[in-house]
Order: sequence, then structure tokens, then C-alpha cells
Amino acid sequence: MAKFLTNRDDNYAQWYNDLVIKADLAENSAVRGCMVIKPYGYAIWEKIQAQLDRMFKATGHVNAYFPLFIPKSFFSREAAHVQGFAKECAVVTHYRLKTDETGKGIIVDPAAKLEEELVIRPTSETIIWNSYKNWIHSYRDLPILINQWANVVRWEMRTRLFLRTAEFLWQEGHTAHSTSEEAIEETERMINVYADFAENHMALPVIKGSKSESERFAGAIDTYTIEALMQDGKALQAGTSHFLGQNFARAFDVQFTDKTGKLDYVWATSWGLSTRMVGALIMAHSDNHGLVLPPKLAPVQVVIIPIYKTGEQLERITEKARSIKARLEKAGISVKYDDRDNNKPGWKFADYELKGVPVRLAMGPRDLENDTIEVARRDTLEKETIKVTDLDNHIPGLLEAIQANIFRKALQFRSDNTYHTDNWDEFVDIIENKGGFVMAHWDGTTATEEKIKEETKATIRCIPFDTRAEEGKCIYSGKPSARRVLFARSY
Amino acid sequence: MAKFLTNRDDNYAQWYNDLVIKADLAENSAVRGCMVIKPYGYAIWEKIQAQLDRMFKATGHVNAYFPLFIPKSFFSREAAHVQGFAKECAVVTHYRLKTDETGKGIIVDPAAKLEEELVIRPTSETIIWNSYKNWIHSYRDLPILINQWANVVRWEMRTRLFLRTAEFLWQEGHTAHSTSEEAIEETERMINVYADFAENHMALPVIKGSKSESERFAGAIDTYTIEALMQDGKALQAGTSHFLGQNFARAFDVQFTDKTGKLDYVWATSWGLSTRMVGALIMAHSDNHGLVLPPKLAPVQVVIIPIYKTGEQLERITEKARSIKARLEKAGISVKYDDRDNNKPGWKFADYELKGVPVRLAMGPRDLENDTIEVARRDTLEKETIKVTDLDNHIPGLLEAIQANIFRKALQFRSDNTYHTDNWDEFVDIIENKGGFVMAHWDGTTATEEKIKEETKATIRCIPFDTRAEEGKCIYSGKPSARRVLFARSY
Repeated sequence: MAKFLTNRDDNYAQWYNDLVIKADLAENSAVRGCMVIKPYGYAIWEKIQAQLDRMFKATGHVNAYFPLFIPKSFFSREAAHVQGFAKECAVVTHYRLKTDETGKGIIVDPAAKLEEELVIRPTSETIIWNSYKNWIHSYRDLPILINQWANVVRWEMRTRLFLRTAEFLWQEGHTAHSTSEEAIEETERMINVYADFAENHMALPVIKGSKSESERFAGAIDTYTIEALMQDGKALQAGTSHFLGQNFARAFDVQFTDKTGKLDYVWATSWGLSTRMVGALIMAHSDNHGLVLPPKLAPVQVVIIPIYKTGEQLERITEKARSIKARLEKAGISVKYDDRDNNKPGWKFADYELKGVPVRLAMGPRDLENDTIEVARRDTLEKETIKVTDLDNHIPGLLEAIQANIFRKALQFRSDNTYHTDNWDEFVDIIENKGGFVMAHWDGTTATEEKIKEETKATIRCIPFDTRAEEGKCIYSGKPSARRVLFARSY
Repeated sequence: MAKFLTNRDDNYAQWYNDLVIKADLAENSAVRGCMVIKPYGYAIWEKIQAQLDRMFKATGHVNAYFPLFIPKSFFSREAAHVQGFAKECAVVTHYRLKTDETGKGIIVDPAAKLEEELVIRPTSETIIWNSYKNWIHSYRDLPILINQWANVVRWEMRTRLFLRTAEFLWQEGHTAHSTSEEAIEETERMINVYADFAENHMALPVIKGSKSESERFAGAIDTYTIEALMQDGKALQAGTSHFLGQNFARAFDVQFTDKTGKLDYVWATSWGLSTRMVGALIMAHSDNHGLVLPPKLAPVQVVIIPIYKTGEQLERITEKARSIKARLEKAGISVKYDDRDNNKPGWKFADYELKGVPVRLAMGPRDLENDTIEVARRDTLEKETIKVTDLDNHIPGLLEAIQANIFRKALQFRSDNTYHTDNWDEFVDIIENKGGFVMAHWDGTTATEEKIKEETKATIRCIPFDTRAEEGKCIYSGKPSARRVLFARSY
């Protein structure tokens, strides 16, 4: 166990924080609630970005960029939207600093007050729909399928590295359609893209479903979500896709002429996924030795470490290692050869375990004699010694096996920690003492949802898409219910 | 000539603006001075980003992300720095909106005033060096070679799409070194990377040199620049790399223990290149037909347009076009097949000329008979008809030839518009009536530089690296000068 990490089972929250810091992923900045994403953490985000960007483009989307600032009056146009975000907005009121004449140093120049305050975007529906108004006149201008990679600000009071920060990085898709059906299809398409990404790249099993009314995005008709289970039994909302109906088109008066010549408001979707996913990645897979990164998102997939006593040994190992590195890189694998001489191999082993590098190769004097190499996998910590000549064939399959195993393990964990209950006391006991997902009946009212939250801190994570209709009685009120929904405490 | 563009020779500024709008690159937003970068413009920026990012990584840099917000007190620590940026800072003073009780709608909540105002980063030296303080203790922690892709805000009063906007996108490198020599070497390395990028990817010839004292970055010891000549005879600063000495290390008390155990302040550089480059790209190469994009940065390199009368013809052309597209894409070329039936071929031809697509392929009924295809290049507007079977061999070389020709043409233009003079009247005449670069002697004083600027609006763009020492007399004061410097009016 990495000695500098708090034990995961003793204090999960502290373990998480230790890990983010010690693995050099991120740190708190001097600005309240804002983090610094350090190079190793950012490299993971770059991998996430690159893959999602490919998937967005493959589904017909293009990128664009809209202003950071939203005039307060725009922001206020969609009533539910502004209610949802008003309490956490950073507001720009002035545009100049000056040297104070009374010796107070640099101050905000009171003469440089903006006529209208500008909100730093917490999300960009309003500024984007204000632009779309000028872009859309006819059905021929539709659909618009735009994504934006950007920073956004939500002035959260309690922040945690990656999971909840005042500023975060994300992508936000904003699409415009001529029919409700097409917009709903897009909303579904994108939640499926997110689920595909989560499961097949992050190795993170997710449950797709709709949010209940009280958990919907402010301004949406419907919010679809992917929900993942973390190792402490809490849920994490990993990505959301919103069907916005005609709400923003009405707020910004965006109408189009359809094929029959009739004017109608445009239909909208938006969907987003953020740096929070890096937090999910850490919390879902890592252990007391450090990070466990799925190979598809690991900045370094294979590290090679030389073990030597003499310079001549190092030279011979280096020659072999360089050749291995070159061959693996040719196969599209990212490889680091760490021949730094200021740290012992044992220190390096621990460090790369902490950093979650999927495969560690070590070569020592005996390997030189036998033309062998030690292969250690991070997920299981298993080691084997194989012939160097077998390496090129072995590694790609090993990386796939690790990717699959990390997913399988997370899926098993979720399966072991998903409960079905029809009994309130049992429900409370699970939520309080075990954690995990609980599938239970709910009467469909916000009042009941709130009561359950008050009494247990559990919320409805989603109404899963793939549950079958099943008559039952609400776990709390006893009123009739047509299907089970997914409850959990959450991040 | 594209009828909807203002003639370039009649009104260059209006031509530029028309082109940015008509080619769908960007538009002004509802927020003063902030632009919306539309998908086609953003696609060019993505190409710029991807190439620069590769070059940064190849020179040992990694990406990271620092907060958007800078506490006012940090921002004020480096005296020259704050003086340089204070007048154009967007300032966040509050963190909440609320519904006004007297019916004024949504207002800034006066109770949610920040204790310390936050400046939106106009550049990130201060917030980054405040982090580096905790990262650097020993020479072993150095160098730090970090780059950040980010948005920044400078509250400019007069803005122009891409060239000068209140918010813009850029990359900013911030490196930390243990010696002055190493930092200077890095400063030079990065201006060379920018020059390489400008010349070999943007097809934009640049002159590398140092800025005079008055044109230096606020807080720098030395600023290196690449300067390019636009088609209206004005210069454009295309990228800068700054040697910051120990200024920021002193301001943030960042010291390290060197190999001998002695404490010293850390040496710094910073370097940046922004979406302004998209403006440079447009202004350097485009013509009255529209954009001329160098193939290496063109989002679409080859467009294929079918010309047909019957559905059967379209079907046969489409089959051939799809096969051509697939083969070219396999060779790494981006190809679009435009078989939309709502526009005539002539309209499409004009549209892709406007969009600057380097190569246009057209196939009509006669081509079907002869197994030929028409190849038109955007840079020269020349057309030729070749055998389809020759296409795979022809296109890669043609793209290279276009890239080279665009550069050659820009170089010829610069050469034709670069003057050497030792006579003040002639200097004034060139600046006033001809435009272009003027190499002239300068006495090295800020006073003379200011006088020249007052009288002619020309500034010293740089003291070129590759001019030889040459005794002479200052063009303005007649005082002795050791070398010529580069004057021009500029963006």
C-alpha cells in the first residue's frame, strides 16, 4: 500500500483527496473553489477530450466558440433557467483597474462600471440561442449541430477537486431542430454517446435514464443522465443530455419557416460532460496503491524501468528498451522509458503504481542473460516474466485485457451493490449502512421525493430506460407505482 | 470576383470584414467586443491548435490548466505588469444574482460582494507563478515546461473580428528555469517554433526580432516577436516570446536551491499565440474571390462537385466520387463530396472559392465518358482536366505545390514591399503612400521612437535578429545608429 495515501476503507473522502494530490493530478488554487489541473491530470482530460471529440464528429457535430460573458438581461429571459443558476453566478461589473490616488494601491476604477452587468457563463444556452436567432430562418438552416469546448463558472459553496469546482472545463452541445421528434432523437443519441464513452473508454458501467422533474436541468423538458456507482457506494452523475423543447427558442424568439411555409419555434437540445469525469475515473477504479487507469485513457500505457548495478548493464538494457519502445509506439501504444538515475527501481515501481500506469516492464541483469522481461499489470498487480520476442504480440492483448478487466470489476461491484427493496426500513438501512444503488417504487410525486431526501439524503438518480413496467407500491407513501426508479446518495 | 465582397483594393478593411462574415468564419456577438467563432472559423483554429500542440510537445512541453480568475492582489504584485494590463481588465465583484423585491427583475445581489475582486485573466503569469512557488524548491524541480490553451480577456475599446477582440482564445506557455541562459534559450526556441509554424504551415513569411523597450510585454526583460506583412502594407505581430528574467519569481518569491546549495530566484519565459492568427491567415493570402487557405490548415482540402442533368448521371458520378474520396482520405487528405441538390454547380464553385478550399474537383457527363475529372486550384484559379486514374498521384503533389506557391507569393509581396531608406522625407512618403516594411536607422531612444510614431503612425515592429551591424544615422534624429530596425504601421 502506498504509505502516503489514507486507507480507502478508513476514509474514502480523504483517500480521494490524497490521491488527487499525490498522483499530481490537481490542486486547489489561491482562488476560492478553483483548481489548478496539473499536467498529469490534464493529460487524462486531453485523452477524454480527444475521444469525445471524435465521437461528436462521427455523429455529425462541429465545434464553435461563443462568448464567456452573458448579458444579465439574456440570462434572465428563460424563467426556469435563471432561477436554476442565479444563485451561483460570477458577475463582471467593471472593466478597468486604476492606481488609487489616496495610496490604497490598485483598485477597481469606479468610473469604469458596465451599463449592464455580465454573467460569466455557467452554461451557454442563452448566449447561443441569441446567436441562433440570426442563423435560423428556414427549415433549410436546420439542424444545427454544434459543440463547444469551454470553461464555465458556477459559484459552488462546497467544492472538491474535479468533482465540484467553481470553474470547470467541459463540452456543451447545443443543437437546433425542426421537429420535436428529431430533437428527442438527438437527446437520446448523445446520452448513448456518453454511455458508450463511459463504458468502453472509461471502463465505467452506467445506468441510463431520465431525471425526475426536480432534478432536471433548469429550462429543460426532459433530462437524460448516465449514473455511475463509486466505490464508496455513492452515485455520480457522469453526463446529461437535455431535451429543451421550444423553451429557449421562445425566450429568444427563434422561429423558422417549415416546408409548408408555416412559422414555428425551433426545437432544442443541449448536452454536457465535464472535468468531473476525471474525478469519476479516479473514484471508480483506484485502490490503496493509487490510480488505476483504463489503458484507453492512460497518458502513459507502458513504462519500462531498468534495473542495473553497472553502467555496462544500463547500456545494454537501454539499447533493448529503446528498441521495445520504438516497436510498441509503432503499434500505437504510448511508452515511457524511465532511466532517471536519481531514484531506485523500487521507488519508481511505487510511483507508477500511484500514477496508475497500466503496464510496467522491468528489465534486470538476469533478463539480459535470458532475453526476458518482467511484465506487471496495474489492475491486478500480477507479474510474469516473458521472452522479449513475445512482447510485441503480448502487450496489445494485455492492454485490452486490462481495459476489459477494469470494466468487469466495476460492473461486478455495481451488481454487488445494487438492491431491490419494497420495505422502507430496509431501504433506510441500505442507504444508511451499506450504500449503493437501490431500485425501489416511487409514487411519482415531488413531495415524496423530497421527503425521502430529507429522511435519508438519497435522491432519485434516474428513472432507468431499461426497466420493465412493474406494478408496485411507493416505498415511502405506499401509493401505486408503475415502475422502480434508481435511488442513491450521490456526489 | 465574388459580388458580395467589397473590392480588396477599394477598401481593404471592409473587404476583410465582409470576408470574415461571408465565409462564415465569425461574427460579432451581443456582448461588446466579443465574437462568436463560427464552425468554419473554429475548424481553422482547431487545425492551428493541433499543429502547434504537436510542436510544443515535440519540444518537451506539457499542457495544464490554471484558473480564469486572478485575485486583484496577485495581479498587482509585478509593477510593470499591472501597469500594462490594468486599463483593460474585466473585474468580477459579485457571485450571485437575485430577484429584486421591488420588481426590477433579476439584479446583482449586493449581499454577495466578494471580499477581494477577481480579475479575468488577460494573461496568466501571476496566477501561474503563484502556483509555481509551491512546485519549485530545488534545481531538480526545474525546468517546468507548461503550456495552457485558454480564453483571455482584454477590454479593448476598438475591436475587429479575430484581430482584436475583448475575449480571445490563445495558448500561453509559462516556463521556469534554473539559469538565465536556459531561459533565454527557451525564449528563442519558442519564437523559432512560431516562425516555423507561420512559414511552413500558415505559408506566412515572418521576420524574427526583438521588440524595442516601449513595445515589450509588461513585465518582460526582452520580447521576441514574429512580424508578418499583410496585403494592405500593414504589419501584424503574429506571436511573441518573452524572457521574463527573475521578475515574476521575485514578485511571487519563487526561489530554488541550486546544485551548490545556494538560493536563487527562478528564471522565467512566457510565449503566446492567439486566434488573431486566423485574422493574419485571412489578410495575408485572400483575394477578391474569397479566402485562400494553405492546404495544411484548410479544414477541407479537396471538394468534389458533380455536374449532371439526369439522375443516372448523378448516380454514376457519385459512385466514382465516393471511390476518389475514399482513396484520397486514405492518403490523409480531407475531402468533401457536395452532392446537395439545392444549389447549382456554379453557385457551389463560387462558394468553395469564397471558403478557400485549395482544390476543387468537378465531374460532368463528358468526364464520365472519358474517365476524366476537372481539377481547379484555388490559389491560381487554374484548371486542368486529367485522367481519374492519375488523381491519386496528382493530388498530394498539387497540395504541396499550392502550399509552396501561397508562401512564395506572400514572400514576393513582402520583398516587393520592403524598403531601405536613409532619408526622412522618403521614409514618410513610403509610410504614408506605399505602406510596407521600412528598414531604417534608429538612435535607440524611446523619445525618437515616440516622435516617429506621432508623426507617421509607424512603430518599430522589431529589431530583426538577422540584420548585420551597419553604421548609420538615425532616420529621424540623425544621431548614430549601429543597425537598421523594422518600421511599419501595424494592426
